[in-house]
Amino acid sequence: MGVVENVLAKIDADLDASLERLFALLRIKSISADPHYKKDCREGAEFCARMLSEIGVAASVRETIGHPMVVGHYDGAGQGAPHVLFYGHYDVQPVDPVSLWERDPFDPAVVEVNGEKQILARGAEDDKGQLMTFVEAARGWMKVAGKLPVNVTVLFEGEEESASPSMVPFLTANVAELKCDIALVCDTNMWNRTTPAVTTMLRGLLYEEVIIDAASRDLHSGYYGSAARNPIHVLADVLAALHDADGRVTIPHFYDGVPEVSAAQKAEWASLKFDEKAFLGDIGLKIPAGEKGYSTLEQVWARPTAEVNGIVGGYTGEGAKTVIPAKASAKVSFRLVGDQNPDAIRENFRAFVKERLPADCKASFLNHGGDRAVSQPSDSPWVRKAQHALSDEWGKPAVQIAMGGSIPIVTQFKRILGMDSVMVGFGLEDDRIHAPNEKYNLTSFHRGTRSWARILAAIAD
Amino acid sequence: MGVVENVLAKIDADLDASLERLFALLRIKSISADPHYKKDCREGAEFCARMLSEIGVAASVRETIGHPMVVGHYDGAGQGAPHVLFYGHYDVQPVDPVSLWERDPFDPAVVEVNGEKQILARGAEDDKGQLMTFVEAARGWMKVAGKLPVNVTVLFEGEEESASPSMVPFLTANVAELKCDIALVCDTNMWNRTTPAVTTMLRGLLYEEVIIDAASRDLHSGYYGSAARNPIHVLADVLAALHDADGRVTIPHFYDGVPEVSAAQKAEWASLKFDEKAFLGDIGLKIPAGEKGYSTLEQVWARPTAEVNGIVGGYTGEGAKTVIPAKASAKVSFRLVGDQNPDAIRENFRAFVKERLPADCKASFLNHGGDRAVSQPSDSPWVRKAQHALSDEWGKPAVQIAMGGSIPIVTQFKRILGMDSVMVGFGLEDDRIHAPNEKYNLTSFHRGTRSWARILAAIAD
Repeated sequence: MGVVENVLAKIDADLDASLERLFALLRIKSISADPHYKKDCREGAEFCARMLSEIGVAASVRETIGHPMVVGHYDGAGQGAPHVLFYGHYDVQPVDPVSLWERDPFDPAVVEVNGEKQILARGAEDDKGQLMTFVEAARGWMKVAGKLPVNVTVLFEGEEESASPSMVPFLTANVAELKCDIALVCDTNMWNRTTPAVTTMLRGLLYEEVIIDAASRDLHSGYYGSAARNPIHVLADVLAALHDADGRVTIPHFYDGVPEVSAAQKAEWASLKFDEKAFLGDIGLKIPAGEKGYSTLEQVWARPTAEVNGIVGGYTGEGAKTVIPAKASAKVSFRLVGDQNPDAIRENFRAFVKERLPADCKASFLNHGGDRAVSQPSDSPWVRKAQHALSDEWGKPAVQIAMGGSIPIVTQFKRILGMDSVMVGFGLEDDRIHAPNEKYNLTSFHRGTRSWARILAAIAD
Repeated sequence: MGVVENVLAKIDADLDASLERLFALLRIKSISADPHYKKDCREGAEFCARMLSEIGVAASVRETIGHPMVVGHYDGAGQGAPHVLFYGHYDVQPVDPVSLWERDPFDPAVVEVNGEKQILARGAEDDKGQLMTFVEAARGWMKVAGKLPVNVTVLFEGEEESASPSMVPFLTANVAELKCDIALVCDTNMWNRTTPAVTTMLRGLLYEEVIIDAASRDLHSGYYGSAARNPIHVLADVLAALHDADGRVTIPHFYDGVPEVSAAQKAEWASLKFDEKAFLGDIGLKIPAGEKGYSTLEQVWARPTAEVNGIVGGYTGEGAKTVIPAKASAKVSFRLVGDQNPDAIRENFRAFVKERLPADCKASFLNHGGDRAVSQPSDSPWVRKAQHALSDEWGKPAVQIAMGGSIPIVTQFKRILGMDSVMVGFGLEDDRIHAPNEKYNLTSFHRGTRSWARILAAIAD
């Protein structure tokens, strides 16, 4: 039996003890969004630092402008060994409404539902359960081999559920300390209960607000309509012009840098047998609204978008008011893929709006940020190694999947540290994260731990 | 010297006493929108009833669900004489902010500004000053001739500035008592300081609210964009389609019943030398936004409109939120002219929206009312008689003008009593009605009174 097999056997034997340690972490009320739980958040950080140090990853609690970070270092694999950064977060979402929970959200327990053992608690999955899969894998390695196969830096934050205000300054101030060969981020899902996955593509996001000004004041629509320009009409014209009849975005150069989905990728995604009807049916819809010629999965994973996230102008209360407003505004965001450049698209969007303005109207803009898409080449050795390890553990080929949303930490690792991320997680769609009765399947926890034990070995190879 | 000349001379001689009576009415704080002034409103009604009875128009205070009406009757002109209903309102707008008034808004005075004598008080014009021009004209007739040349019903309401909740039930309950040959409504303006006017056209108004429903709940734009239908996009497409490139409304049959402006009317309006540049410049605009081929005056007086008065959907707070909302809505109103039928246009608008809906979206509608346009033929004898009388008084031809907005009482007289209205008033654009330092030029009051004395004679002819 090789070392890995021994580590896996140790993990199996220690499962109850591992669970006990997870429960101890789950009992800490580290709700980062609520100042009332500030002390609990610190307790969470201290617990994590103690636990890491205990297994040989020398860790400390690091102060920030908000809740503390936990940073740990292990260099026992020696020079020349790969150096990975493992990221997770010890903070959790608020628990309201508590009355909808089947039990105290901070009193974890394993419950059996439809023959499945589930760990029930706030943070059971997001992200305490996920983070502990890595810690317990490292513990197994230490116990069996006395060392880890790779050098490791650990970064746990306590503000992920409250917009991570400290992360950018912290990364910026500690580039040399934190930059590794690759980041391992454990905050994502499997494809389904039996199929492990590596998430290799996240869309970027550009967010703009546009304000159209027409008359110098609100006008009475009797006296001034239709001679006075109505900025809601101007805005509606602009927004309606954003897409053509095939659902393509019409802003010039918008598709610069958008890669076509490769035949191999198309084939792999097709093999996932994604249930488009169920996906849309679940939200009361039935017709994919995006670009013609792309499947629903391609639309949400691999194609860029332009979406109006908010619009307001004129009278919006009850009943009727005959006003021609002085201004109208909209929030417009763009999901980006491949090499789309947020700065260029911002400029082109603003020009697109201005070209459509009557001469006596004015447009102004608010920049609500822009981040490029991040992706790992499908043949990246990091990804391939993780896939092989996952496939071995789950007895089924691990798939590469994408996410239509963004994970800010992955973007920040790339932008600030120049470091790619491999995203592996063991969440399931029905884990009810951010909701009452959050759970993490015991299988996810146990085989997740075994998965990391294998991945560390694969990376060291 | 004929009777009319004697009446006019009496009016001139009694001007100071007339002013004193107006001042007494202006001192009553009859603010209808503020429940604190309920007693003052009743006092206003009682004052008016007493004053009318004093000159021989037997009047009483009539209860309603809100502030009382004043109704008076005079039938001394005998059978066969024309029977006119005179309408005005004794209530006034609130006076906030009081600090911007040059003097106590309920302590009227005549002040001289740029060589012009102005009556300064809340209600000086709207509508106490205007209604008193008629009352003092009738008083002059009574004193000189012992009778009025026509039979008269007077209707003064006390809720005009607070949406007239009692008017429709009151008219409906008293059709037989209130229906006359013609209504004389004194609540409008002259064309300018030297040019009297009869307002002969008011646009109608149809008001609809449309709600577009897409997904069954708000969605995250990362996970679902662009596969999930965005109802703001659907709404923007519908609203952008409402007008063609020439500013014409594209709803089928929208222009059914819209009369072309006659050559005579065009010529008369052109002779008014309306300053389009100043009209738009005053509100910070410079390009007429309505239908190509029509002057600004034609656009606001004689052409129908479709205006979005309000729109809302998705996130409208500070900053950014990546939501695809479940619904979006807009308030859309139509100004109507000629014989446009609000019911038909409502149906056609709703069909227009529904035709543009994706199959998995739903539109629902709220009906916020619909009233036809009202107009008097330009050769109506009532209008012609009023014009002649006004021309004689002001030494300058009286013009026929229109109003882009509506005057609900005129619509209600037409709909409920089947009675047309002749709108004559002596307000000026700079009278600051509804604002601090409301005024009524002494000339408007004096020559307005003389004008009514002449109009009554002209109608009797």
